[in-house]
Amino acid sequence: MSIQYILEIIGTFSFAISGALAIKGQKYQDWFGASFTAFISSIGGGTLRDILLNSYPLVWISDITIIYAIITGIVVTFIFYKYLIRLRRTLFFFDTCGIALFTIVGTEKALNLGVRPEIAAIMGIFTAIMGGVIRDVMTNEIPIIYRKEVYATACLAGACCYLILNRIGVERNTAFIASSLLIIVIRILAVRYEWTIPRFFR
Amino acid sequence: MSIQYILEIIGTFSFAISGALAIKGQKYQDWFGASFTAFISSIGGGTLRDILLNSYPLVWISDITIIYAIITGIVVTFIFYKYLIRLRRTLFFFDTCGIALFTIVGTEKALNLGVRPEIAAIMGIFTAIMGGVIRDVMTNEIPIIYRKEVYATACLAGACCYLILNRIGVERNTAFIASSLLIIVIRILAVRYEWTIPRFFR
Amino acid sequence: MSIQYILEIIGTFSFAISGALAIKGQKYQDWFGASFTAFISSIGGGTLRDILLNSYPLVWISDITIIYAIITGIVVTFIFYKYLIRLRRTLFFFDTCGIALFTIVGTEKALNLGVRPEIAAIMGIFTAIMGGVIRDVMTNEIPIIYRKEVYATACLAGACCYLILNRIGVERNTAFIASSLLIIVIRILAVRYEWTIPRFFR
Repeated sequence: MSIQYILEIIGTFSFAISGALAIKGQKYQDWFGASFTAFISSIGGGTLRDILLNSYPLVWISDITIIYAIITGIVVTFIFYKYLIRLRRTLFFFDTCGIALFTIVGTEKALNLGVRPEIAAIMGIFTAIMGGVIRDVMTNEIPIIYRKEVYATACLAGACCYLILNRIGVERNTAFIASSLLIIVIRILAVRYEWTIPRFFR
Repeated sequence: MSIQYILEIIGTFSFAISGALAIKGQKYQDWFGASFTAFISSIGGGTLRDILLNSYPLVWISDITIIYAIITGIVVTFIFYKYLIRLRRTLFFFDTCGIALFTIVGTEKALNLGVRPEIAAIMGIFTAIMGGVIRDVMTNEIPIIYRKEVYATACLAGACCYLILNRIGVERNTAFIASSLLIIVIRILAVRYEWTIPRFFR
Repeated sequence: MSIQYILEIIGTFSFAISGALAIKGQKYQDWFGASFTAFISSIGGGTLRDILLNSYPLVWISDITIIYAIITGIVVTFIFYKYLIRLRRTLFFFDTCGIALFTIVGTEKALNLGVRPEIAAIMGIFTAIMGGVIRDVMTNEIPIIYRKEVYATACLAGACCYLILNRIGVERNTAFIASSLLIIVIRILAVRYEWTIPRFFR
């Protein structure tokens, strides 16, 4: 069991918590809706990536640990949600780590499947953000990519960083950690200093 | 031509009717929109299941009867919609039978493709509900799973029932009928006695 | 490099422009959102078709020219959007040509993969309209198929025309051009004379 695998399980667990919490403001908030939303948020991005790349079986279908990580996330949210909501900063940190990890894992996986770097970067970003996009579309929210402006841009920067380090021959673990940290740092700075990316229509 | 195949065609036909009727309250209600919605409602769930399980060709692509069952449903809705709307109870009963059937068919198909029981249950629920979820997302409605609270929970109960009966060696047809009936009974009782499942956030 | 390939690249480019312009009225209009929307609009329909038909690798994954056509469309929109918005008629014409082309390309591709004509027509329509449908669902708009009533019906007519010409043995290029022109003519006449297709519920 590699460190990366443990981190991926933690990332899935974090995404399940933020997914379950996402129905907090909704009109209907029953157990099934919360679990369904948590599930879609956690596996949506990676599933879309694997379908686009024709990479089967899907990770959560062949590895049941992921399903149990999601169920654990749902149960933890159910029991501790009052504390979780107060721990806004901690949650933000875990969510950011999940996004960083999923971006680089997705980029690397696509690259290993033989696609070009441009496509690998798109797949990395999709892995990190599409679960949230699908969740927002389903709950009739404005999708996250249209709201938190630097959210996806940080993923793009991290994916490009990984691809460049990979190209110039940097050792894999170093490239992985450096690119993930870049995403985390950009996102934390962006939130703290309220960075926004330029408007498209001036 | 097995009884189950006939039931599946009837289920598809029922889903097409409820899909076409779903645009009744919408702003725009032309022929194409109604047909498109009926089509997506009918095949959405099974299509998603088969894509996730990498099971090709998709059923409606290889068996044209399904397309004609949907077209028949659309034409019947067009001609008889004034009667259909009055037959709310009959429609509800057909819709419930369709959901029950699709849940068990989906669970069984996934199981036959060699996935674990937990995944098979998820696939069964997806088969029954995702067509409706996609339809609601497209027509800007709150997805059905967030509204009718016992809707998907009944499917979950039926899928689990089938998996348990299958595990303890109950004959296939008996397990199929018993689990389908469980879903139908739960849903009818839930609507009659206004059951709701517990809120996630107390 | 065939004429058809060049036309497909131009079609992708046009779809990217209309995708990027689609966020004009939205609340949030940053660079990433515009690019993401342009990307989804351009490749959504063809991607869905290829996933449904299990036709891999996806075109935009194996041919990087498509990605660069989209990026060019985004950059052109960014620089010239003030002129583009004034060129409403020109844009409409390009969009219509893109839709016509994609419908026939999609129908033909499905037919070549061995599906029945009915399925090929559905795939042709999906290729042309689903990118726009996904874009509208993501930006919380009423999907295009529910709004512009003759939009998808023109694609249906063109796909059927192609299938009939193909069946009676008309030479491929002639059938391709005739069916594409039919879609363009129907759509232009529909907009000019405000054609609507019949309501489903009278």
